[in-house]
Amino acid sequence: MSIFGNNYDTIDGTRVKKSPVRLEMSYDLIFFFREEIVMDKVKVTFLPGNKTVSVSKGSTILQAAIAADVKVESNCGGKGTCGKCKVQLADRNLTPISKAEEKFLSKSELSEGFVLACQRFLEEDTVISLREQKDSFSRKTGLKNIAEDIPINPSIAKHFLNLNPPTIEDQLPDWDRVKNALPVKDIPFDRSLAASLPGILRKSKFKVTAVLDENELLAIESGDTMDRSFGLVVDIGTTTVAAYLMDLNSGRVVGNGALTNPQQFFGADVISRINHASLGPDALLQLQEKVIGGLNNIIEVLCKEHRLKAEEIYQVIIVGNTTMSHLFLGIDPTYLAPAPFIPVFHESVKVTARELGLKILPSGKVIVLPIVAGYVGSDTIGVALATKVDRLSGITLAIDIGTNGEMILAGKGRILTCSTAAGPAFEGAQIKYGMRAAEGAIEEVTITEDVELKVIANIKPKGICGSGLIDAISEMVHSGVIDESGRIAGEPEELAMFSPQLRDRIREGESGMEFVLAWSKDTENGQDIVLTQKDIRELQLAKGAIMAGIKILLIEMEIDEQQIDRVFLAGAFGNYIKKESALGIKLLPNLPLERITAIGNAAGDGAKIALISVAERKRASDIARVAEHIELSSRRDFQDFFLESLSF
Amino acid sequence: MSIFGNNYDTIDGTRVKKSPVRLEMSYDLIFFFREEIVMDKVKVTFLPGNKTVSVSKGSTILQAAIAADVKVESNCGGKGTCGKCKVQLADRNLTPISKAEEKFLSKSELSEGFVLACQRFLEEDTVISLREQKDSFSRKTGLKNIAEDIPINPSIAKHFLNLNPPTIEDQLPDWDRVKNALPVKDIPFDRSLAASLPGILRKSKFKVTAVLDENELLAIESGDTMDRSFGLVVDIGTTTVAAYLMDLNSGRVVGNGALTNPQQFFGADVISRINHASLGPDALLQLQEKVIGGLNNIIEVLCKEHRLKAEEIYQVIIVGNTTMSHLFLGIDPTYLAPAPFIPVFHESVKVTARELGLKILPSGKVIVLPIVAGYVGSDTIGVALATKVDRLSGITLAIDIGTNGEMILAGKGRILTCSTAAGPAFEGAQIKYGMRAAEGAIEEVTITEDVELKVIANIKPKGICGSGLIDAISEMVHSGVIDESGRIAGEPEELAMFSPQLRDRIREGESGMEFVLAWSKDTENGQDIVLTQKDIRELQLAKGAIMAGIKILLIEMEIDEQQIDRVFLAGAFGNYIKKESALGIKLLPNLPLERITAIGNAAGDGAKIALISVAERKRASDIARVAEHIELSSRRDFQDFFLESLSF
Repeated sequence: MSIFGNNYDTIDGTRVKKSPVRLEMSYDLIFFFREEIVMDKVKVTFLPGNKTVSVSKGSTILQAAIAADVKVESNCGGKGTCGKCKVQLADRNLTPISKAEEKFLSKSELSEGFVLACQRFLEEDTVISLREQKDSFSRKTGLKNIAEDIPINPSIAKHFLNLNPPTIEDQLPDWDRVKNALPVKDIPFDRSLAASLPGILRKSKFKVTAVLDENELLAIESGDTMDRSFGLVVDIGTTTVAAYLMDLNSGRVVGNGALTNPQQFFGADVISRINHASLGPDALLQLQEKVIGGLNNIIEVLCKEHRLKAEEIYQVIIVGNTTMSHLFLGIDPTYLAPAPFIPVFHESVKVTARELGLKILPSGKVIVLPIVAGYVGSDTIGVALATKVDRLSGITLAIDIGTNGEMILAGKGRILTCSTAAGPAFEGAQIKYGMRAAEGAIEEVTITEDVELKVIANIKPKGICGSGLIDAISEMVHSGVIDESGRIAGEPEELAMFSPQLRDRIREGESGMEFVLAWSKDTENGQDIVLTQKDIRELQLAKGAIMAGIKILLIEMEIDEQQIDRVFLAGAFGNYIKKESALGIKLLPNLPLERITAIGNAAGDGAKIALISVAERKRASDIARVAEHIELSSRRDFQDFFLESLSF
Repeated sequence: MSIFGNNYDTIDGTRVKKSPVRLEMSYDLIFFFREEIVMDKVKVTFLPGNKTVSVSKGSTILQAAIAADVKVESNCGGKGTCGKCKVQLADRNLTPISKAEEKFLSKSELSEGFVLACQRFLEEDTVISLREQKDSFSRKTGLKNIAEDIPINPSIAKHFLNLNPPTIEDQLPDWDRVKNALPVKDIPFDRSLAASLPGILRKSKFKVTAVLDENELLAIESGDTMDRSFGLVVDIGTTTVAAYLMDLNSGRVVGNGALTNPQQFFGADVISRINHASLGPDALLQLQEKVIGGLNNIIEVLCKEHRLKAEEIYQVIIVGNTTMSHLFLGIDPTYLAPAPFIPVFHESVKVTARELGLKILPSGKVIVLPIVAGYVGSDTIGVALATKVDRLSGITLAIDIGTNGEMILAGKGRILTCSTAAGPAFEGAQIKYGMRAAEGAIEEVTITEDVELKVIANIKPKGICGSGLIDAISEMVHSGVIDESGRIAGEPEELAMFSPQLRDRIREGESGMEFVLAWSKDTENGQDIVLTQKDIRELQLAKGAIMAGIKILLIEMEIDEQQIDRVFLAGAFGNYIKKESALGIKLLPNLPLERITAIGNAAGDGAKIALISVAERKRASDIARVAEHIELSSRRDFQDFFLESLSF
């Protein structure tokens, strides 16, 4: 760890000076799947919530939690290597302490009955206490059928073939015998499939099912397997890798899983990863192997849970930011970091799973959706596909807000994109009491006579998350605690206007004015939770960059903001943000509320659409081809719009 | 060895009953290459022949032999692992005995000054004695320019690119920057090439040379490398793997090498190899790895000798019989052995060197020319290409005689092929005193009052090779020693017609009549060398099968044999056969001598043509597509023609 750590620090220091630093959103990591368990049952009750479930004797607590649909964090998929699935037993003598537990649990935790849920096998009825955690990762797009309005037409097609065995009068080669029976022309020869074809044909008495991906023959399966056909969709985030297993016959999501991106080891943000990759081919390979290894773990668990063979997964669609796409493919991302931010490719890339070492059908294709630019990746294309920006009438604005804000403005037959380093304020980073959207985070703020807070998990607040911050500042603007320029009211005549409770909360802090959101007596750590003048400036920089980007897109399209017919807020953040507050701080164009819609993980939805419909996948390439990327750093007017957009 | 040996025997025994056994030609193995050596010289003289050459001090005797253009057998390319490069020193104290020499040389050989040529480093002027060996492997097509009448137009093309570096106004991805500068459309994205592209472009200051194979980008090389471009042609025989290194700019052969097919370990003939492969995927992989490993050795030596990097070899063309093509590609050949002799593929196969583990440019393509049927392989397509059977006017018959006889009859807009198990008689196998065409083999026989022999290397005869056998029997027919039915004259009234010398040579042997070719006093081993009645029957079966095949082709084309305008005899055997004798035993249609031409290794020539001309390579596929294969075993009339063709 220290070797890589040292390398980063040095390189990071150097690189940061060379190029704008871009950071990425962080989500809580989760891993969830479903299973119905039968026979030899024990009863397990989860507290709080009092959820009871019957599971097979010998199941782990983690499996029971899955069956009960209560969330238990797990990174390693039950291997006992991450130590995340901590739960507390009501009855403390289940089975002996495992090595993994010795490693991950403190003595006091062990004495309090904490165990790792994956390490404990249920032999009798058990009561388990969970510290319930709200996490910011939306399950909205989890198990629903995203194909409702998309005709199911994947590029994968299966054909059952009942072939005539060869004779001395009919010496057609095996490959040609199969090929000629298929309704597709120009099937290219595949050496590795041909290698074992003779045995399969004869073992199956020449009754086989061919798996085609467009005109490519991927596999020949014994007998009739028409009813089984699976694909995988993967959204590679800098922080989280999320995967969705889909049934290609029904177009339904049958399961999903997520994992912290194992590249975290080489740094939390894309710049750290790029810096590591730039050390040379071995370092690049390390990064690639990390993400592919993590994905293989997810695949293994999904296959086990849903009782399928990895070889029944025929195709994978990948979305991610441009850096993640490069690293996943093992392509040198070095020159994405410094200006002029040059990617190596932009087209959709198709490689075999075999070439990448991804453990699905080896001849199955892994398709990375096209990218637009160095900081507008295939995840943005996914958003465009899911929101149909290219097909909606009027003007559509889609924004994916994270550390980077990626924006699409579509209309008048054009699709414009830009990207801006929004800054980490929206994740709570660089905010004095900022934190991720986890339990104890202030997520809603109301200011009237005094301040009212809503805290995730209803416990004493520990800090404030991005949506809470926007809420707080919107309320402070509304109540006059800060003025349009973002200055906290401090003059006596200003203070005189507030209620005594509010007046108390405005004070001179260590580094300028600050506003107390929660008093020490009410907080988790016994300190006042405040928003500082500097915190407000950080948010202004972030939202100013986004609004400036939007304004430049509007100018490029020669429209004004009132002509925007709809705004889509994509990403987990967009799901939690209060629209009124976003408008309140002028993060978004000043439009009627009903024109603004949060749409969740649209990037992932776009990838699912690309998997179940080859026509939609081709549309993704069309969108990428026609998309006009506006490089904000090349725009002389960006600075002006930026400054103009700082005010509330 | 014993494990595999046992497996074979069992399986061989079983399989042989199921299907006709086909065996393959065996050639002497050789390994030769050329090099000019300069500086710090020592003089080396080779006896007999008195050839003197100056080579660098520290060179091996093997290298000196190469420089002197004297042939020294070597299988392992100078690694000291085959023990074949035995030579004798005039001066016996060069350097100490190496381990390899201890292993491969007997004590008496060591005491006589025998050494391994690859193990001895030349430090002073030296005289070396070689036992000169004539071998049957034709060098005719070795180093000459085979491209004389073929326009040089390989599918490999290089383009020097002087690109503009990217700027913030010109953010074209690296791949697209290269792609857009090339004169070819629709270049597919190549992940592995893209992986390292950014570094190469910037290190070369965006001055690079692109290597294209049709519309595929194979490599981006730093700077201007337009003058260097190489390809390889490989003829994979069951017995010998021969490779030719070619300069794609000039179309010239720049070097060559050959090696005993390392699959020999698993049996000498195709049926043994198929039986081994049919044991399972691991056994198949073993066979594939053997031939690819051997080929990699040849490539390594060729690269060293001709001072090029393996990555400068951009393409490989492979010809071989159908079984060899399957094994090279790692494709299960099991069902080639039993009727109905079904291959897995017939089209030309193109795979990357990377996929096969062949050590040229990893993205370079290895192209196996198309095959026609289970026993008419890409070597036959090579013959067709080299002889231009598809473009010559009139009727052309091309025959490649080995253990199998492959025949092409072209004319009237059609190309017919057939294959017949000619039997091993032409290699001297199953002939009492039969042997390969090596030193001591009777290669020509003249019968007048007595018998005159010509023996390879002018030593006492040890046996008789295929061409000698045909000669002998032709002369015996001509002189009346055997009659048209093949019976050796034995009745007193018949014997009375001969000279006393001939009469003495006709006698009753252990198993019927026999004819003495050489008396014990004149032979190497002190035994009479005879041709038995059984030997003659063996030859009759072999030549009868070939003539029957030709007759069926003639019937299929609805012509008689006199309409054949030309006959090409391909293969090493064809080079050594005396045309008069071939006609004398009715191995060939009865045509004027001038219509019959021996053309050497036409299969290899065809592969060279396919390498230097993409148009010719496509023609190979056209020929394979239009070729009509006549499966003789499905013809009821074959047996009749066969019996009819047995007579002389």
